[in-house]
Amino acid sequence: MSLLVQKTAGGREYKVKDISQADFGRLEIELAEVEMPGLMACRAEFGPSQPFKGAKITGSLHMTIQTAVLIETLTALGAEVRWCSCNIFSTQDHAAAAIARDSAAVFAWKGETLQEYWWCTERALDWGPGGGPDLIVDDGGDATLLIHEGVKAEEIYEKTGQLPDPSSTDNAEFQIVLTIIRDCLKVDPKKYRKMKDRLVGVSEETTTGVKRLYQMQANGTLLFPAINVNDSVTKSKFDNLYGCRHSLPDGLMRATDVMIAGKVAVVCGYGDVGKGCAAALKQAGARVIVTEIDPICALQALMEGLQVLTLEDVVSEADIFVTTTGNKDIIKVDHMRKMKNNAIVSNIGHFDNEIDMLGLENFPGVKRITIKPQTDRWVFPDTNSGIIVLAEGRLMNLGCATGHPSFVMSCSFTNQVIAQLELWKEKRTGKYEKKVYVLPKHLDEKVAALHLGKLGAKLTKLTKDQADYISVPIEGPYKPPHYRY
Amino acid sequence: MSLLVQKTAGGREYKVKDISQADFGRLEIELAEVEMPGLMACRAEFGPSQPFKGAKITGSLHMTIQTAVLIETLTALGAEVRWCSCNIFSTQDHAAAAIARDSAAVFAWKGETLQEYWWCTERALDWGPGGGPDLIVDDGGDATLLIHEGVKAEEIYEKTGQLPDPSSTDNAEFQIVLTIIRDCLKVDPKKYRKMKDRLVGVSEETTTGVKRLYQMQANGTLLFPAINVNDSVTKSKFDNLYGCRHSLPDGLMRATDVMIAGKVAVVCGYGDVGKGCAAALKQAGARVIVTEIDPICALQALMEGLQVLTLEDVVSEADIFVTTTGNKDIIKVDHMRKMKNNAIVSNIGHFDNEIDMLGLENFPGVKRITIKPQTDRWVFPDTNSGIIVLAEGRLMNLGCATGHPSFVMSCSFTNQVIAQLELWKEKRTGKYEKKVYVLPKHLDEKVAALHLGKLGAKLTKLTKDQADYISVPIEGPYKPPHYRY
Amino acid sequence: MSLLVQKTAGGREYKVKDISQADFGRLEIELAEVEMPGLMACRAEFGPSQPFKGAKITGSLHMTIQTAVLIETLTALGAEVRWCSCNIFSTQDHAAAAIARDSAAVFAWKGETLQEYWWCTERALDWGPGGGPDLIVDDGGDATLLIHEGVKAEEIYEKTGQLPDPSSTDNAEFQIVLTIIRDCLKVDPKKYRKMKDRLVGVSEETTTGVKRLYQMQANGTLLFPAINVNDSVTKSKFDNLYGCRHSLPDGLMRATDVMIAGKVAVVCGYGDVGKGCAAALKQAGARVIVTEIDPICALQALMEGLQVLTLEDVVSEADIFVTTTGNKDIIKVDHMRKMKNNAIVSNIGHFDNEIDMLGLENFPGVKRITIKPQTDRWVFPDTNSGIIVLAEGRLMNLGCATGHPSFVMSCSFTNQVIAQLELWKEKRTGKYEKKVYVLPKHLDEKVAALHLGKLGAKLTKLTKDQADYISVPIEGPYKPPHYRY
Amino acid sequence: MSLLVQKTAGGREYKVKDISQADFGRLEIELAEVEMPGLMACRAEFGPSQPFKGAKITGSLHMTIQTAVLIETLTALGAEVRWCSCNIFSTQDHAAAAIARDSAAVFAWKGETLQEYWWCTERALDWGPGGGPDLIVDDGGDATLLIHEGVKAEEIYEKTGQLPDPSSTDNAEFQIVLTIIRDCLKVDPKKYRKMKDRLVGVSEETTTGVKRLYQMQANGTLLFPAINVNDSVTKSKFDNLYGCRHSLPDGLMRATDVMIAGKVAVVCGYGDVGKGCAAALKQAGARVIVTEIDPICALQALMEGLQVLTLEDVVSEADIFVTTTGNKDIIKVDHMRKMKNNAIVSNIGHFDNEIDMLGLENFPGVKRITIKPQTDRWVFPDTNSGIIVLAEGRLMNLGCATGHPSFVMSCSFTNQVIAQLELWKEKRTGKYEKKVYVLPKHLDEKVAALHLGKLGAKLTKLTKDQADYISVPIEGPYKPPHYRY
Repeated sequence: MSLLVQKTAGGREYKVKDISQADFGRLEIELAEVEMPGLMACRAEFGPSQPFKGAKITGSLHMTIQTAVLIETLTALGAEVRWCSCNIFSTQDHAAAAIARDSAAVFAWKGETLQEYWWCTERALDWGPGGGPDLIVDDGGDATLLIHEGVKAEEIYEKTGQLPDPSSTDNAEFQIVLTIIRDCLKVDPKKYRKMKDRLVGVSEETTTGVKRLYQMQANGTLLFPAINVNDSVTKSKFDNLYGCRHSLPDGLMRATDVMIAGKVAVVCGYGDVGKGCAAALKQAGARVIVTEIDPICALQALMEGLQVLTLEDVVSEADIFVTTTGNKDIIKVDHMRKMKNNAIVSNIGHFDNEIDMLGLENFPGVKRITIKPQTDRWVFPDTNSGIIVLAEGRLMNLGCATGHPSFVMSCSFTNQVIAQLELWKEKRTGKYEKKVYVLPKHLDEKVAALHLGKLGAKLTKLTKDQADYISVPIEGPYKPPHYRY
Repeated sequence: MSLLVQKTAGGREYKVKDISQADFGRLEIELAEVEMPGLMACRAEFGPSQPFKGAKITGSLHMTIQTAVLIETLTALGAEVRWCSCNIFSTQDHAAAAIARDSAAVFAWKGETLQEYWWCTERALDWGPGGGPDLIVDDGGDATLLIHEGVKAEEIYEKTGQLPDPSSTDNAEFQIVLTIIRDCLKVDPKKYRKMKDRLVGVSEETTTGVKRLYQMQANGTLLFPAINVNDSVTKSKFDNLYGCRHSLPDGLMRATDVMIAGKVAVVCGYGDVGKGCAAALKQAGARVIVTEIDPICALQALMEGLQVLTLEDVVSEADIFVTTTGNKDIIKVDHMRKMKNNAIVSNIGHFDNEIDMLGLENFPGVKRITIKPQTDRWVFPDTNSGIIVLAEGRLMNLGCATGHPSFVMSCSFTNQVIAQLELWKEKRTGKYEKKVYVLPKHLDEKVAALHLGKLGAKLTKLTKDQADYISVPIEGPYKPPHYRY
Repeated sequence: MSLLVQKTAGGREYKVKDISQADFGRLEIELAEVEMPGLMACRAEFGPSQPFKGAKITGSLHMTIQTAVLIETLTALGAEVRWCSCNIFSTQDHAAAAIARDSAAVFAWKGETLQEYWWCTERALDWGPGGGPDLIVDDGGDATLLIHEGVKAEEIYEKTGQLPDPSSTDNAEFQIVLTIIRDCLKVDPKKYRKMKDRLVGVSEETTTGVKRLYQMQANGTLLFPAINVNDSVTKSKFDNLYGCRHSLPDGLMRATDVMIAGKVAVVCGYGDVGKGCAAALKQAGARVIVTEIDPICALQALMEGLQVLTLEDVVSEADIFVTTTGNKDIIKVDHMRKMKNNAIVSNIGHFDNEIDMLGLENFPGVKRITIKPQTDRWVFPDTNSGIIVLAEGRLMNLGCATGHPSFVMSCSFTNQVIAQLELWKEKRTGKYEKKVYVLPKHLDEKVAALHLGKLGAKLTKLTKDQADYISVPIEGPYKPPHYRY
Repeated sequence: MSLLVQKTAGGREYKVKDISQADFGRLEIELAEVEMPGLMACRAEFGPSQPFKGAKITGSLHMTIQTAVLIETLTALGAEVRWCSCNIFSTQDHAAAAIARDSAAVFAWKGETLQEYWWCTERALDWGPGGGPDLIVDDGGDATLLIHEGVKAEEIYEKTGQLPDPSSTDNAEFQIVLTIIRDCLKVDPKKYRKMKDRLVGVSEETTTGVKRLYQMQANGTLLFPAINVNDSVTKSKFDNLYGCRHSLPDGLMRATDVMIAGKVAVVCGYGDVGKGCAAALKQAGARVIVTEIDPICALQALMEGLQVLTLEDVVSEADIFVTTTGNKDIIKVDHMRKMKNNAIVSNIGHFDNEIDMLGLENFPGVKRITIKPQTDRWVFPDTNSGIIVLAEGRLMNLGCATGHPSFVMSCSFTNQVIAQLELWKEKRTGKYEKKVYVLPKHLDEKVAALHLGKLGAKLTKLTKDQADYISVPIEGPYKPPHYRY
């Protein structure tokens, strides 16, 4: 795909697979709106006052139908938006087309190369001479990373004249990041620092990105305020858990049509994502085995009737493997070689390095047979036995299916909207320092409340007397901060 | 699509969507073979002796990847095969292409018109001057129906000179059937009787077809022996139940991406199919309400914590509707008008008349918006509220997804192979009269046994003493005929 | 306990543990009546016409609260009743007391010896000079067995003068049976033949008794008509399945208080009883492993995510063992020796020989420590490790808890009432020969229908058009005889 | 029961129901030890060094078999112990007997009056002239309350000479507390202040007690350090959730034998306890409806397929009611009057005021029929319809069954042991101020780890590289403090 930016009639930039899919995207966006009551309520509540008037927002987050409803909520509240995906396979091209045509500058398509991926990220951050962005919506932290690495390189360059050296790292993806920064430095040696100076803050979507932010906070290197959306209860205990419970079997079915009942499935990691995956597989009739490092999560798995073993114990008898850890090197090529013929290997954690794809690709004599896009059979030369790898080791629910369903994403994204509103409102008050924050509980509860009506639920109301008895306000928040739900 | 028969290099006829998808089909067929141990065991056990040598088999059964493995099992055992689909949306075009290129005469594509559908059925039954078929594999009984109606018309014509009159019926599909027979009568007034005379028998796949057969048996109009494969335990208690438990959510997800958790789902009918659907929806987090006419099945639903109400009670508060009854007029247009905006209406019973599609199409002012193939939003003019209809009211798991997974179809299809073998072996012994038979229990148990190894199961073996104590042979069968599993 | 028959003020015989518990029994009987809508509906429908006027009914069936409601339904319909339990541990003494005081002649207490057990059976069959019984309600077939063995012995004695010889068998229980018959022969050498001549028939409750009846029918030795109540759908698919799903964990909890979550549980046998047990254990958080001889049932277990292995494979790693087979020698003493310390061994099949209790008792040096009644720890001398055996190997749900709950027993017992009514009504018509019958489907459906209202269910009504379309009467029956539910 | 303290041969005080049950209690304690690996591991690890040498510990916590293992762990580590129950119905008399005879001073029996209850509490706190306790193990905070109220009264008395006036409150229980303190003041006006001065701290077991502690901390009235054991993950996410999932159905079954399948059950509150209860009821086949004040918990219930309504919406159609809120006035007498005949009303929250027992008792004309201890039928005069109230509105799992099973209590109680060790070790270091603390995460993880072996689990070990990648130590702790599990 040639990397030329295109423009709408109105002059807005974009680069998508096929702008003619915009009508199809629009139809699905309209369906999704009915399923995203939190976002629609934000439009109703905040739309009239246009709180984002003047705000330039860059998003790096899976460019799906659900994200389209998020973007159009931001624009409905007055923002100007540029967007890229945070995963090379996660874009839904019809969603990208509809947004590109109607609402925001989009740079995303399903099946980007890593080179293209970072080009898109750069484009989404590039607001031209007027400057920007003011705010970032990040997922996994790649946009945030690029700015931090850019600033670091600029400072070194200013001091030492030394340009970043892509060959200094083995990591193929980080080589690309350094190349982009290097090339940019030559043109504008202050670009990322100007960006940083303007930035009001970032709201981060996912466990992996949040972990990076806390590390930077701990090291004192965080350059702007961050709101940890992931750890809103209505995000991590919903999207991660119920979202994956829905989209893991969806991805498995679309990619392989394999019967889950009767199979032995190994779920690596029993955090929120792993819990959702294990529940889905168990309910579908699989026998589920969990691997864990954390004894507490392991004990939770046992209480649900799941066996807890190491990958080595079960690698040769299981049919389906799912990594959910957020860590790396979970399934290595030596594991894969010991698997049954046509064992399915997939990852629903954030990055593809949970599965040792590099080791697999480089295994001498290995043969890759693409059944269909995102579904590859890899055959080992010695055993002549093959394994099925989904989405090239990347997020299988987004690569092989359409990701989480709208309703649960409405919870997550309503948190994003509220976080962005909060950052923007407080942009000059100093309320937020260069630290990582979570949203206060009453906003978390509000997000949940916005989603009850759609499901026909009716809440019970405390009496004054009862509220006093348990020492909470009648209208909440109802729980202490350490409450775990 | 122009209805011209094409030919392979070797001269075998076919009509498929796109023969170039044969390679893709072949890859998926190879994956499916690993998941279909019963069929592969049949190839191993019977292949060498070529029991079907000389047999001409016509199949009318969803032309999917799994059916492809069935067809190639029949040909591996020596049969010559012609095939059509038994549903206008159920064909997987890459499967049809691979079989057409490599193994059998196929007339099937996804999205046939009714006209095209019956043309395909006629082609599959047309073995040319040499005559045929010897055996039929039927699903829903359409091939069997065509022959019975053909014979009936020929006899009337011979007696009275009267041709069938398509305008004598309101049923659009039956008009087509009568037209085909009428046109055929003019050319060869003995065609269907010759077919009947040669026919050794039919093995029928599904509840609906079996019901038709028992009716014909009761009326004394059944023209040849029939084996009721549907009521093998390893068929109806597996394919209908576990197959639908898998493929119902698959169809819902692919068609609508809607979150099932939190929704109110109505399952009409709580037979094997309904039980599978209700289990899947409950496990995915829906609140499931069942409608039933049969108090026993209703009580079963209650024991699983499902509410049993009438459709009228819940029509305006449910989000998802699934019909599984095998009956007609389950969801009528007046129900649909009362539904919530974007309620999902789908059918997983055999015929599309479970949902009153005709009433919907003819409703004054109704507007159909096709989101994507097999997913339509119908908007009522008065309420401006829409419902989502899947697969035009036909089998949603085959229309919107890929039907049941290979493993469970291996159970069903191994029964088919065994039934066909039985009919063919006994073709001259008179063992089978013009009646409906089920397979003996030891063959049913054999089918199950062939599927255990793949799932790592180990059976317990009775001692002589134990077998005597419960009065069964050590090697089975283990249960009395009335046992319900 | 001295075996003296006592009498009520009104002169009715009984022998129970403590007649003063009658008030407590009455209170629980009144609670149970609310939960047994089928029986109460029988009282309302048939009570006024007193159809059992003149009928003498003997019952041999667990003397529980639920059975009390059955007995009082029989008496409310005009019958005179004598009753014993069909298991030495299953009597609820307060239920026995209430019935003995208020309604029928009862001979039953919790914790009978085998000697006492057969004495009670004899008493229940002994209607004195007036003769009787006319009808038998049997569970497991012991009352039927006694009559058949009695008749056999009488005929031999008449021909040969030879008395039955208890020492001719190793089976301790059968020795008692022969002793009873021998002693009786000396007094009245025609007693059992007179009984047989008068008997209109038996209705049998359970799988084990039914198996015996079919064997006698096959051998041509069945002496009177029998209705197989067990195979009514509303019995075997409810009581066996949902009853055990309820009462298995109940028995485990009351006997051992052990946490089920996290444990490895082995269920031997995956019939209706095994399915109920496995479901309960899985839901409670155990990891369940099934042993099976029947490949079909094994495949069903696999489809529910349960592992299928042999007992030998898992005997040393499991925590809980449950036998449900109806066969013998399932868990042998050699298995028990290999179990983990404090593994729980229990039986919910009909007879105690599923577990090799004899082998355990006779194991050299084994030590029995009674924790509380029905909960024993057996310690092996070599390993010093113990196992917990429930209810001395007999029905653990009745021995350690209170058996199945009222609602599901109402389904079973309504079938019993209907079967008894049917036998009595047809006593002179010859409708029932010396064979085993099942109730017709419309009565089965009626039983179910009587239980729907209590659970708030509403049935859907077929239209005439729909009923014709699927060829069933509007008011049922709705399914063909082979339908499996 | 006359309130006379008794003494063992060795001179240790006690007051239990029946000391002759000590042998039975000992047998069950030995069974429980096998199921409580965390406590047994503490004995093995810490026993040799006798860390509690010299420590006097008072416990106010359900005197069950499991608590017996806790007590004997404390004594095995060197402590001297006095104990009372924290609920009038929760004592298991055989457990109390065994501990009284063998290990500690116990004042507890099943079925105390409120008067007796507080007498027991006073006894457990009374260490005689030598003074004490040094440490308190509290559950619900009654021991802590008595000391705080005592100190408050003493201070007022010292300043003003005014004695506490029991008639100043309507609350019957608080009248007793004030009476005790008043009577004590006359004898020793410094008793509670001496106690406070000596006290090293309290470890609190449950949500309700913790709430009280945080309130005192907020008000600045907390008199000594407190460790909040409830909010250890291995307590609240295990005991509250999985414990109740086990013991709720246990209590229902033992009290009522009612069939849960098919019933409509209302769970008031969807916190950890409510989640466990709802899961158990759903799995047993009930249709579960949840009432909630907190929108987040409500949305969680919906995601599990549970309906969320208000009590008013469903009060007249449900069969089973369970309160789990920790709040008061959840089910009021007006609700109870509208319930179905024989609806079951029960509480598994901490205090009995969740159900308006006072309103029920005082309802004009209401009749109480005791079916058996802890199971009462209350009949309203106007409707003549009754409801079944369990355990007089108190903790039904402890009143009607035996509370949580040993394994899950081992998690909770290992936290207690560790908390007590921590308080005692730091008694002079000033590490703990008069505040509420939770245990550090590595100790929480340790508790979990001690329970894995028993269930056959094997943990995965991080490599150094992986640990660095996710920035955690190889040996944990693995999660940030805000992680919710």
